[in-house]
Formats: sequence, C-alpha cells, structure tokens
Amino acid sequence: MDQKKWALDARQASYQLAVLSPEERNAALRGIKDALKKHRETIFAQNALDMAQAEEEHLAMPLLKRLKFDEAKLADVLSGLDSLIALPDPLGRITLARELTPGLNLYRVACPIGVIGVVFESRPDALVQIAGLCLKSGNAALLKGGREALRTNRALMAAMQEGAKDILPPGWAALLETRDDVNDMLSQDESIDLIIPRGSNAFVKYIMEHTAIPVMGHAEGLCHTYVDASADVDMAVKVAVDAKTQALAVCNATETLLVHQDIAAAFLPPCAEALKARGVELRGDERTRAIIPCQPATDADWDTEYLDAILSIKIVDSIEEAIAHINRHGSHHTDAILAQDEQAQRRFLSGVDSAGVYVNCSTRFADGFRYGFGAEVGIATGKLHARGPVGVEGLCTYKYQLIGSGQTVAETVNGTITYTHKDL
Amino acid sequence: MDQKKWALDARQASYQLAVLSPEERNAALRGIKDALKKHRETIFAQNALDMAQAEEEHLAMPLLKRLKFDEAKLADVLSGLDSLIALPDPLGRITLARELTPGLNLYRVACPIGVIGVVFESRPDALVQIAGLCLKSGNAALLKGGREALRTNRALMAAMQEGAKDILPPGWAALLETRDDVNDMLSQDESIDLIIPRGSNAFVKYIMEHTAIPVMGHAEGLCHTYVDASADVDMAVKVAVDAKTQALAVCNATETLLVHQDIAAAFLPPCAEALKARGVELRGDERTRAIIPCQPATDADWDTEYLDAILSIKIVDSIEEAIAHINRHGSHHTDAILAQDEQAQRRFLSGVDSAGVYVNCSTRFADGFRYGFGAEVGIATGKLHARGPVGVEGLCTYKYQLIGSGQTVAETVNGTITYTHKDL
Repeated sequence: MDQKKWALDARQASYQLAVLSPEERNAALRGIKDALKKHRETIFAQNALDMAQAEEEHLAMPLLKRLKFDEAKLADVLSGLDSLIALPDPLGRITLARELTPGLNLYRVACPIGVIGVVFESRPDALVQIAGLCLKSGNAALLKGGREALRTNRALMAAMQEGAKDILPPGWAALLETRDDVNDMLSQDESIDLIIPRGSNAFVKYIMEHTAIPVMGHAEGLCHTYVDASADVDMAVKVAVDAKTQALAVCNATETLLVHQDIAAAFLPPCAEALKARGVELRGDERTRAIIPCQPATDADWDTEYLDAILSIKIVDSIEEAIAHINRHGSHHTDAILAQDEQAQRRFLSGVDSAGVYVNCSTRFADGFRYGFGAEVGIATGKLHARGPVGVEGLCTYKYQLIGSGQTVAETVNGTITYTHKDL
Repeated sequence: MDQKKWALDARQASYQLAVLSPEERNAALRGIKDALKKHRETIFAQNALDMAQAEEEHLAMPLLKRLKFDEAKLADVLSGLDSLIALPDPLGRITLARELTPGLNLYRVACPIGVIGVVFESRPDALVQIAGLCLKSGNAALLKGGREALRTNRALMAAMQEGAKDILPPGWAALLETRDDVNDMLSQDESIDLIIPRGSNAFVKYIMEHTAIPVMGHAEGLCHTYVDASADVDMAVKVAVDAKTQALAVCNATETLLVHQDIAAAFLPPCAEALKARGVELRGDERTRAIIPCQPATDADWDTEYLDAILSIKIVDSIEEAIAHINRHGSHHTDAILAQDEQAQRRFLSGVDSAGVYVNCSTRFADGFRYGFGAEVGIATGKLHARGPVGVEGLCTYKYQLIGSGQTVAETVNGTITYTHKDL
C-alpha cells in the first residue's frame, strides 16, 4: 500500500500532540483565533471568489448561504473557539483506578485517538470548528471540505497554521483537496485511526464499505414521535409540531408520527390543523385517513427521510407495535414518546434501540450544542465508541496505565503475590 | 442483500434481551450452569468423539489440550459463570446527568450493543465464556467456534439453550458451523452490530477488509519492554525474564527488548544469562552483540511476533528513540518501561500509543482476569470503543435519555426557555 506523505505527517504529528499539556493546546487555539482575526480580509476576499464561482454555477440559495463566510460567520467561529478553550480538558481523566496487588495499580486514562479524517460539507466554518475539536482533544486532523469552498478553506487553513506554528507541528491539520485524496484516505489504515464522513446516506455507506479504518458515521435521521394513549393532547400537539416544523432539512426532525389508537380521535384533528397551518403535507395510513383528511401513505413512506414539509402518520394498536416499527424502520438516531404513563415511558426508553430516546420533548433537541457539549463533530448513528452528538469526549479513547514496582506474573502463579482487585 | 434467518432471529432476540432486568439475566446464567452440570456426560461423550477425530487427523498436542473438555474444564467454566453472576450489572449505569433547562434532563445510560458475532478458536470452553459475557451484558450472540470442536460445541449450546429457555428467547445465542456462515455474517450489517474475530493477524485483517460492520480485533501482540538508563538492574532482569518467558505463545509476551545505551553494559550480561538458562534464543543489533554473544538481528526481527523462545534486543540512544521504535514497530498492544526516573516514566506513559503502557512490571499482566474484569472476550488493539482487555463493559454502549415535560426547540429560540446545562 502506498503511504501518503500527508498521512504519515499526520501520524507523526499525532505523537507530538499526545504529549502536549492542556495549556499548550489551549494556547494554540488562542493563536488560531488571533490569526483568523488578523487575516480576515484575505479570508473574506477568497470567499468572495468562491461565492462568485458558485453563483456562476447557479448553486441553490441554501448552498450559497452555507458557503458565505462573512463577519457574522467569523464571529460565530471565534466564539466557538472560545467555548472550546473554556471546556475542561477531555484528556487525562481517570475512569478506573484499581489496585491489582499491593504496589501494582491500574489506571484507565483518557487519551487522544490519534489521526482523524473528516469529510465534510461546503460550510467553511465547519473547517475551523472540526480542526478546533480535534486539537482540543489532542488529535491530528485530515480535513476534506466541499469543492465549492476550496479557496476559503485554503485561506482559513493558512491562517490556522500560522496561528499555531509556535506550538504545534505542521502536520497537526491538513487540508485535502480532491476526491482522489478521499479515496487515498480509505487505504491509509496504518496512519488514520478514524474516519468521520458527513454527507448523504449513500456517501457514508460507500465509505464504510471501502475501508478497513473504523468509520463514525451519521448516515441518516429518520426520527419518530410516538403519541401514547396516556399523552396530554395539548402538549403532544405542541411537541409534535415542533419536532416536524422547527426546521425541515435537518436530521433530527420527526418524519413519522405514530399514534396510539385510543388517543387518535382526540389528538389527530388538532395536530393536523396545526401542521397544515404550517404547510405540512400529511400522509396517513388507512385508519388515520378515517379520522383526518390526508394523502395515503405507502410502505415506502415508513422508510423515507423527507427532509421536507411532509409527515407520515400511522395508527398503532399498542406501544409494542410502536417500538417494533421504530426499531425496524428508524435510523437509530432519535425517537420520542409523548406519554404521561411512567410505565409506558420506561418501556419506550429501554425498548427503542436509538442513540437518543426522549420523553415528552421534541426530537429537535438532538444536538451537541443543546446537550452542552460545546460543539459537535457529527451525530453518530452507529453504536460503537460514541453514539448521538459527538463532541470532544467522543474524539478520545483511553489507555491502561499499570504502575508497579517489579511485579511479575510468575509471582502471582507461585503465590508470592496475590490479586486484591481493590478499587482505589 | 440476503438476510439470514439466524441473523434476523438474533436481532429480534436482542430487543427482548435489552429489556430484561439484571435479575432475569443472572437467573438465565444460573439456569445455564445447572443445565451444563445436568448434561455433563453427553458433553463429555461428544468431546470424546471430537478428540478421537482430532487424534486421527494428527492435530498438534497443544491444540488437543485446548480441545479437551473434561471435569476440570467444566469446573472452570462453571466458576467463570459464577464470577459473571457476581459482577455488578454493566447496564443502566448513568455516566452523564445534566439539566438542559429546568424540567428537561439528559442522562447517558449504559445499554447493550445489540447483536455480537464472535469467531473464536477451538477451545469449547470459550463458547460458554463468550455466550455468558454477551448474556450478562444483554447482547445476542452469534458464535462460530473451531471446526474441530463442533460436536462438543453443539452439545454445549443445546445444554445452554435448555437451561435458559424459560427466560430467554431462543435467538439469544446461536452456533454457526461453517466458513460460509462466517462469510454470510460479514454482509448482515442490518442485523449484526459488532464482529469480534479471534485468530491470526491475517484472519482479523481479512474480516476488517470484507465487512461494513464494526470489528473489534485483536490482530497481534508485538510487545516491548524498554530498560531505561535509570532502571534498577536486578528488578529489570527479573521483570524482563518474566515478560519473555512466563508464557511463550501468548500475545502479551515481550518480543523485543529495548535497552538504553547507558545501562546496557550493566544490564545485558545478567539478563542474557537468565534468559539463556531458560532456553531463549537472543537476537541482537550490532551494539548488543558487542556486549553479549547472540545471533544478529535483522530488520525483519523488529516486526516479528515470535510467539516462541526468541527475543530481539536493540540498544537505543534515548527514551525518545525507544518510544519512536515502539510506535513504529509495535502492535499497540502492551509495552513497558523499567525505570526509576519519574520523568522518564511519564514521558513513556504519554508518548507510547498502546492499549497498555506499563511501568516497572511485566507485559504479561495484560489480561482481563488479571485486571479484575472477571473475564474477557478478547484484547482489542484497535483504538475505538474498547481498548485492551475487553470484559462486559466493552460489550455495552450507551443511549441518551432526554426526559422533559413538553419542551420544544422553538421555545429556546424565542427565549421562553433558556439552557442552563447544569450537571445533576
């Protein structure tokens, strides 16, 4: 396998990052802040070129809005770096301390993962945010942004490198520029410890199927809100409307509403009215259509992440049917129950196999900022390592430190020393 | 993709396992114990058939010893189940509790991963141990053992199924029997959450490269012991001898000894004498051969896991050279420093990128039983999710439970409610 220089550089840099103190990592973040401020005009000028080309290529308005990097976006990015600096150090935390035998102590200590490759969308502010998260957690970062943002990203990366150059090795972060680079990334399993792809379901699956490197992916968000027989109808309408309409093209919006048959007649009419007032198209199963006027839902609807002003509705006989539907059709992202009955709440919390299981609140809360993580590098829908919104803690692993004074295993076998396994 | 019935059954069973209480899971473990005792004669008889065939096929003596399932092995297996029953419940632990806003509380709660596929070697006792670990942690298990142990494994699985049938759904554990089953496993990413391959480096790599399912692999163990300039010579000799010779064909045995140049003349002669007395062949670099008589080491030796009575020895100029050698040639399993200087110890602990980093003790301590985990399903050399010896805790993930009383994201935007992010 052909080892790429940028991957080897990142690996080398990761060893140097791992031994930096929290003060040094925070000082580098402050240096990056200062350099971004200093080079703001260059960055804005490069962004203007990216914007001009994007307009020429008739990119859609939402894409253009995301691509724009102006004073307001810079202010957001700088305040994001401030929050990162203020976060407690994620490294060095001891999560297990145990005497194995007198004088031989085991510690499980949080440490960086090493080298993290992130493929992200066309928002240039994401470049700074992700680089900052990786640096705070002591990881080297290989960053591939959107093609449309290339000039902006180059200017941001140049400023960040300048701001950190007195503290960090140059390999602490690198900008990858082409699709070939992404494909090369997939084969660098000697040098890259984790790949985080942000993008379409198909893209994340492609990455997972073409690399031996662990992937932390956020493939899709097909979230459900289940209205139990015991729900408070007013609260249920309010929360369901928020879960569907507070934002539409987002992974934590509810796409399917499951309604217990015993509450359907009371709940569906006011809920449908509120949703239609917000322009939402409703697609219901047969029993739903017997209560409210709406389009018929087909089997495909239960497996569709609309990311749009469309909601599918299904009436279920029981909470068990709701849980089974969610586990079968959902994306294990975030699902909510609206219920007053505590037994139903508990049943849902333990039975639904999702990163987020919510009681009486909107699925839209699934977000690193809202959870108080400071920022997130993505929302993981896999189950290993980190699940749900992933902040700096999810970019750490641990090592076992065993501190002794000459102990051998032979002595445990011949009985000279015996295990105590006493937590410290 | 063709979904296999055994995989779908395991997925369904996993949802039922997830809602069992710790008492129910422990009762199932007790039922399994009783059934294994009850059916001991059948199990021994099936094992005798496996043994007879293995002898006919002239299997090597160590393999035959591992294949044998007799009273002593049964006693070990039963006492292993007792330890599992005695372990605290790994599920339900709350690792984060935070008020997001008054009345809206976030909890991170340990839960099972779901369905775990394990491919293991020819020891039939491993079947019971792994099934027990999965059950204790609420996971369904797909288990593929060695071909040589098939009759024994079938008898063990039949007994376990009978012992647990009043509490568990039949899909809680299934025995896979063929290599085709293993290949089928790799494509069941809808139904399997994690694959744990135990076996050769090449086998683990093959699995990693042919599945989109996360793999927790223990590929190889190329462990180092580094003797620092500040080491106590007597202790260093004692520990180095244990690390190399206490057992030979094991992943946590030391394969390469790195020796600081300032202590080489004092340390190497007594160490070489002790190792040669135990029949260890020494292979040294040029500087080592100038001090003690031994075979010349080639570049290939630094990358070789001998699993045998062979030790490679290299003299290094500095602790930095030792750390760089370990990070480049090691397998990120377990590496030790023998040193009295605390600064050198700290430098090694933070600089070496391995699951286990040890000070003044033998690399042979890297083991779930020795760490007090009760048992291990393997030793992970990857860095994600779980690292080092993996016990029941490594077979768990977590979910975020968000418990509210009607909160919406719209209210956080319009200022009706504000985030407090107060840890509870």
